[in-house]
Amino acid sequence: MKSIYLPILFFVTSAADAQSTNDSLFLRRLTAEVMRNSTAYENLRVLTKTIGGRLAGSPQMVKAEQWGLATMQKAGADKVWMQECQVPHWVRGGRDKASAKPIQDSKSKIGKWHRKDLAVIALGNSIGSMQPLTAQVIEVKSFDDLEEKKDSVRGKIVFYNYAFNPTFVKTFQAYADASPYRSQGPVRAARYGAAAVMVRSMSHSTDNEPHTGATRYNDSIQKIPAVAVGLKDADWLSNTLRQQKVEVTLQTFGRFLPDTTGHNIIAELRGTEFPNEYITVGGHLDSWDNCEGAHDDGAGCVQTIEILRAFKALGHQPKRTIRFVLFANEENGLRGGNKYAEEAKAKGEKHIFALESDAGGFTPRGFGITASDAAFKKIQSWQPLLAALGGGEIARGGGGADIGPLGRDGSGTVLAGLQPDSQRYFDFHHARTDVFEAVNKRELELGALNMAALIYLVDKYGL
Amino acid sequence: MKSIYLPILFFVTSAADAQSTNDSLFLRRLTAEVMRNSTAYENLRVLTKTIGGRLAGSPQMVKAEQWGLATMQKAGADKVWMQECQVPHWVRGGRDKASAKPIQDSKSKIGKWHRKDLAVIALGNSIGSMQPLTAQVIEVKSFDDLEEKKDSVRGKIVFYNYAFNPTFVKTFQAYADASPYRSQGPVRAARYGAAAVMVRSMSHSTDNEPHTGATRYNDSIQKIPAVAVGLKDADWLSNTLRQQKVEVTLQTFGRFLPDTTGHNIIAELRGTEFPNEYITVGGHLDSWDNCEGAHDDGAGCVQTIEILRAFKALGHQPKRTIRFVLFANEENGLRGGNKYAEEAKAKGEKHIFALESDAGGFTPRGFGITASDAAFKKIQSWQPLLAALGGGEIARGGGGADIGPLGRDGSGTVLAGLQPDSQRYFDFHHARTDVFEAVNKRELELGALNMAALIYLVDKYGL
Repeated sequence: MKSIYLPILFFVTSAADAQSTNDSLFLRRLTAEVMRNSTAYENLRVLTKTIGGRLAGSPQMVKAEQWGLATMQKAGADKVWMQECQVPHWVRGGRDKASAKPIQDSKSKIGKWHRKDLAVIALGNSIGSMQPLTAQVIEVKSFDDLEEKKDSVRGKIVFYNYAFNPTFVKTFQAYADASPYRSQGPVRAARYGAAAVMVRSMSHSTDNEPHTGATRYNDSIQKIPAVAVGLKDADWLSNTLRQQKVEVTLQTFGRFLPDTTGHNIIAELRGTEFPNEYITVGGHLDSWDNCEGAHDDGAGCVQTIEILRAFKALGHQPKRTIRFVLFANEENGLRGGNKYAEEAKAKGEKHIFALESDAGGFTPRGFGITASDAAFKKIQSWQPLLAALGGGEIARGGGGADIGPLGRDGSGTVLAGLQPDSQRYFDFHHARTDVFEAVNKRELELGALNMAALIYLVDKYGL
Repeated sequence: MKSIYLPILFFVTSAADAQSTNDSLFLRRLTAEVMRNSTAYENLRVLTKTIGGRLAGSPQMVKAEQWGLATMQKAGADKVWMQECQVPHWVRGGRDKASAKPIQDSKSKIGKWHRKDLAVIALGNSIGSMQPLTAQVIEVKSFDDLEEKKDSVRGKIVFYNYAFNPTFVKTFQAYADASPYRSQGPVRAARYGAAAVMVRSMSHSTDNEPHTGATRYNDSIQKIPAVAVGLKDADWLSNTLRQQKVEVTLQTFGRFLPDTTGHNIIAELRGTEFPNEYITVGGHLDSWDNCEGAHDDGAGCVQTIEILRAFKALGHQPKRTIRFVLFANEENGLRGGNKYAEEAKAKGEKHIFALESDAGGFTPRGFGITASDAAFKKIQSWQPLLAALGGGEIARGGGGADIGPLGRDGSGTVLAGLQPDSQRYFDFHHARTDVFEAVNKRELELGALNMAALIYLVDKYGL
């Protein structure tokens, strides 16, 4: 038996080796192209420094769309277009403010203090107080704690002081754990008559910057103002409340203007063999208004464009059609991602794979994959090639908010998310510290390189 | 056969599972201890901000030694002591300066300019010009290029403009590739009569900071001044030289004072079962004088102390004796590492394992291991436990400069080096930007956690 099987095994091994050698050679050329000639970092500088924060509906959104269109054209797309969608138009409306003051109380054990400003920022989509709103603060440590104290919250400002859990090695787990306090906290406190909500910022940072992010109201429950508080001030407030009663005066100005028109910016490289099979790669073009949106998600946008640029520079012609998408309105509506999936479905497009970069421009570690067992196994078989580029951690689960709707139509689109190292992401996420200077050039480029490599392999071998 | 083997297999699997469960439980406690209660970041702040740069022989070296002694005592060591060694005492002696000036030349094609200051820093151990030294600059791209131009270098300043190669995914490969120009460049240029040397900084950074580091003279060849140049100025100089002749005036003040006394700072946790088997973990306490030495190697020092603190806080008693060492004089002499190995040998100590952290306080990715096949395989078997903490990339080769001498005595000590992500390291390495603010708290702590986990496993299972 041995003598019969050996030659066949040998042949199979050789073919696989040759293929693997070709891939290695291409990936070496790709590495040289991206690490020597990338325009991702300069593109990010232009996006962040000349346009800046670009929330859906803002004038900067319009500028960013024009920038995206021009930059993708310059990168060499066969075709670039704008896909229209209606987007919400929330405006902050003014400078969010809060200050704390002791409530006179004979039992007070700490020294005299008069009024302390707190570092706060209104949550995205939240309704402003418009006028200064003053109320006693009640701290709750969790939703369970809220339930226990529900009879005491009427007319008060509920202060959710649920900390990011530092023991999760991957910080996105801490975010998943804590973020319900931001998204659902205001509604749950309003149900018991709270006047407003303060949420401990979703961060591990060592500074006092407040971190915004979307909250969700329920139309049947009173909409109350809601802010995030910087970590140092959250700790100060918690310590102070242990010793005396505190009232906070806050003032926010958020409101919705009528929906307006936004766009996904889409570039295409037409497939040579299977033009009707689509691979999508993207990031989101919008960002919060309080920062430059460098990590979130300028990085994903310029990485997406870099893949296009590098493929064109190398003369690489994909077999399948690759779409490079800068999605609209991820932060407070997801209208761009929904629109893209809707139109794909309406046109009966076959989307085999979608990859998103929306976890910061940090050093890549790997990819999170939502796929069938067979497709996952196939992607895993490329692990050594990706590991050589730094992105070898292939894990189950993952994708991205914008490509999520593509995966929910039952057509079996495989979803993937770039997983950069997560330690620093929540230092910057939704805070004004998310600026160009917080992004490292090589880390950003290596992310693009690993994404390009995965796209190359999926395109070449299918899924 | 099956029915006979099955129960045995079952037993073996259960025992292994139970063991692995115990390890997981301990590592979970360790994670909570380090990620919640670590003092590494605060220790780093004190070391960098209150002591600062601490080159061998400097007054700051003495302060840092006292700090190390006190901090290790506080962390709960059974015993802490200073191990004396003679260290070199190089001083910079003044502010290094250089400026460029065009040499009048009728063929000059570029606009008028008069004199331009260059961002330079004298290489460590280099001899100062003392007086301003003016000479024409000759650029060489490599040692091969130097050989070709050897008849033209006499009396000139040789400018080694060999760039860090951006296509190496791991930046230490670029460093290994480029650093001979710093260590050997001056000697090789002096052999052909060069007056001085300028070296392109060993960095991928986007700024213009010059990066120092040791050079090595040869006593039989003229010792000439040598500086590193910032990347922007190196590019400017190279571009300018393509169009006209340039002379540079440089002035440096480096010199050696007589050797002086330094110390390794050593703490010990005595082993309960095999007290005569030693495990060493450490970093180096010295740093260059032009920076705070936060990544290089304050990080390694405070991580080393953190392992001690965490073990004590958890009441963990090692089976083997663990030595926590802050090594003296890594940067320009390695006298601390040599002394430690000499004394170990003289006393006949059995050192089974040594681990060093000297690649920055960045997010851990794994370990580089220099070991026999059997020992390497054993360490690899712990990969899943380390991967859960972020440090699962177990690669062959590695260790650290300070523990190197322990591995060279033929006794088979297994050497390991923490391998943090390397993308940002050479942005800061030996430049004044290597400050506390460049270190991320969680990244630093995760490095300590992974080191502690590996030490725990080596101690428990031996090698």
